[in-house]
Amino acid sequence: MRFPAATLQAQTHAVLLAWGLQPDCAETAAAAMIHADVAGIDSHGISMLPTYEMLRERGDLVPAARPSTVRDGTVTALLDAGGGLGHPAAMAAMRLAADKASAHGVGVVSVRNSHHFGAAGQYAAVAAERGLVGLVTTSARSVSVVPTRGALPRLSTNPIAFAAPARRSGPFLLDMSTSTVAVNKVKVYGYDDRPLPSGWVLDGDGVPVRNPHEALGILLGAGAGGLTPLGGTAELSSHKGYGLAVMVQILSATLCGATFAAAAAGDGRPVDIGHFFLAIDPAAFREDGRFEDDLDDLLDLLRATPPADPAQPVLVPGDPEATARDERLRNGVPLSGVLVGQLREICGRAGTPFLLDAAS
Amino acid sequence: MRFPAATLQAQTHAVLLAWGLQPDCAETAAAAMIHADVAGIDSHGISMLPTYEMLRERGDLVPAARPSTVRDGTVTALLDAGGGLGHPAAMAAMRLAADKASAHGVGVVSVRNSHHFGAAGQYAAVAAERGLVGLVTTSARSVSVVPTRGALPRLSTNPIAFAAPARRSGPFLLDMSTSTVAVNKVKVYGYDDRPLPSGWVLDGDGVPVRNPHEALGILLGAGAGGLTPLGGTAELSSHKGYGLAVMVQILSATLCGATFAAAAAGDGRPVDIGHFFLAIDPAAFREDGRFEDDLDDLLDLLRATPPADPAQPVLVPGDPEATARDERLRNGVPLSGVLVGQLREICGRAGTPFLLDAAS
Repeated sequence: MRFPAATLQAQTHAVLLAWGLQPDCAETAAAAMIHADVAGIDSHGISMLPTYEMLRERGDLVPAARPSTVRDGTVTALLDAGGGLGHPAAMAAMRLAADKASAHGVGVVSVRNSHHFGAAGQYAAVAAERGLVGLVTTSARSVSVVPTRGALPRLSTNPIAFAAPARRSGPFLLDMSTSTVAVNKVKVYGYDDRPLPSGWVLDGDGVPVRNPHEALGILLGAGAGGLTPLGGTAELSSHKGYGLAVMVQILSATLCGATFAAAAAGDGRPVDIGHFFLAIDPAAFREDGRFEDDLDDLLDLLRATPPADPAQPVLVPGDPEATARDERLRNGVPLSGVLVGQLREICGRAGTPFLLDAAS
Repeated sequence: MRFPAATLQAQTHAVLLAWGLQPDCAETAAAAMIHADVAGIDSHGISMLPTYEMLRERGDLVPAARPSTVRDGTVTALLDAGGGLGHPAAMAAMRLAADKASAHGVGVVSVRNSHHFGAAGQYAAVAAERGLVGLVTTSARSVSVVPTRGALPRLSTNPIAFAAPARRSGPFLLDMSTSTVAVNKVKVYGYDDRPLPSGWVLDGDGVPVRNPHEALGILLGAGAGGLTPLGGTAELSSHKGYGLAVMVQILSATLCGATFAAAAAGDGRPVDIGHFFLAIDPAAFREDGRFEDDLDDLLDLLRATPPADPAQPVLVPGDPEATARDERLRNGVPLSGVLVGQLREICGRAGTPFLLDAAS
């Protein structure tokens, strides 16, 4: 079933309002979520509503929260998301970092006491739209990634997003978890009953798990092991992905005092999430426009790399999302019947009209 | 053969002085190079002298260069290394970034027109020694890494280093190339005639090369293919390592106007290298000391992860280097006979005494 992005955004907005979000926060969050769906990042858009509902019902999420400024220096700031959804705080934080970078060359804004903020890339992209380089990282709640040599998970999929503005080309936009894959990718192999590539999931003895159902059991906590850091196995340098995941944890959470989820799980403490936003103005280093021109040349040269298989041209980060955006703005965003059913029930519980009856 | 670090540093210093480096620059570069050797990073220390000699003989390297400040803003600066060795410019740049961060919360310094600066991690560590978080990236000359789906190399091994200060523990120190492995690791497998792990090197059809001699041929340009980005194969998400390599290229070179080596190779232009230095003061975000305490807890918890194999405990980035440092400061730094022979010849050509006759 496919739906126009505007319909999905209206539905999401209505649910968030019914849950008690501030009107402007509901608007920002709904726009951010559907932005992810339109870019093809199905795992970070409207499909998160069931999780957000669960967090709200458990009392972990403070729906009516409004982000507040705790510290505001010349080129740094600290925001508190008040325990609300992360999207409004994240958007405010990146805009503030961008303001500081436009004025002084660089800005760093940190957010504590937050929740899931959706796809990290869109906040980095906000910097690029303003002619700035943007770097975004976030911590997360679920502990799924096993340190190199470890038998148990200690880290989250801790993403890094990075964007930079070009002129002819769209912006460079990298948005990646620091694990080899996300839990969702393992689920898809489970649905299809396909063996996993070796190196996505390890058991407690450090041995790759190929059976997708056994792997999902491990990821649900039924046994030792978990997702691998980028690299996969020690032989393929998973210590680098592990190191990047710790770097993201430090920037996102240690810097602002947010939780380290693995420690909180041990103590039974609630988990808050931290985010990190950096913006840099290329004009502080180069004559106006030269950065964008050089980035165009760089991206052109990468795309022109002779491919190993002529049917699969070399892409640059951001290309798959741009292609999805073109297609989905034209044809609508596909949602599974299962998800549409869940959304119908969420609307019922929230007491807000269900808008997804008529597929476009 | 093992040598005291002080002897290696005196030897390196003498060679650099004989080549015409400014005395202070020679001192900084020699200290930085031997710092890498002591930390066990053999590929980035005194073993680089033959390469530096070659660059000097070709006229690519300007030995007498002194780094100069091109732009100096409140929280950003641009240095020009004058075509000299990268170490003095890099050390000056990180110190300047740290000064700005200590004064204003964050500092970013970019260096253009530089050469190899050794191990990136030691500049990040300078920030951590001053109580700051440090991030360092650099571009490089040699084009060896194949974009995901590509048949030819377009990127360098573009490293990322990140350091953060703890209190009880040594600093967190990540220093990694964004490729799965470096060329040197493939060479070692060649010496030992061992098959390579699948995913280190791909041929022009995107197929993993296991024969180390065939792989070395490819890396020397005898055929299509090259090193893989971190992740190894597309199935194990090498697009993430590829994206990180481009991010490093943009931060290090596009931001300051240094060369993109793959483009320069096509045009026959000389290649200059760019570096990027970011320092952030945790005290801009948290009460004094809380960051360091939380980082101690984080590192403790990671090290306490139950290991898959009890004989191989879980480490954190920086642990192997700290262990090497303890051992080498006690027992001396091991150099191969081949390298010692090369150094003897270099000393002869430079007209400076050879100091490595008597192994300690």
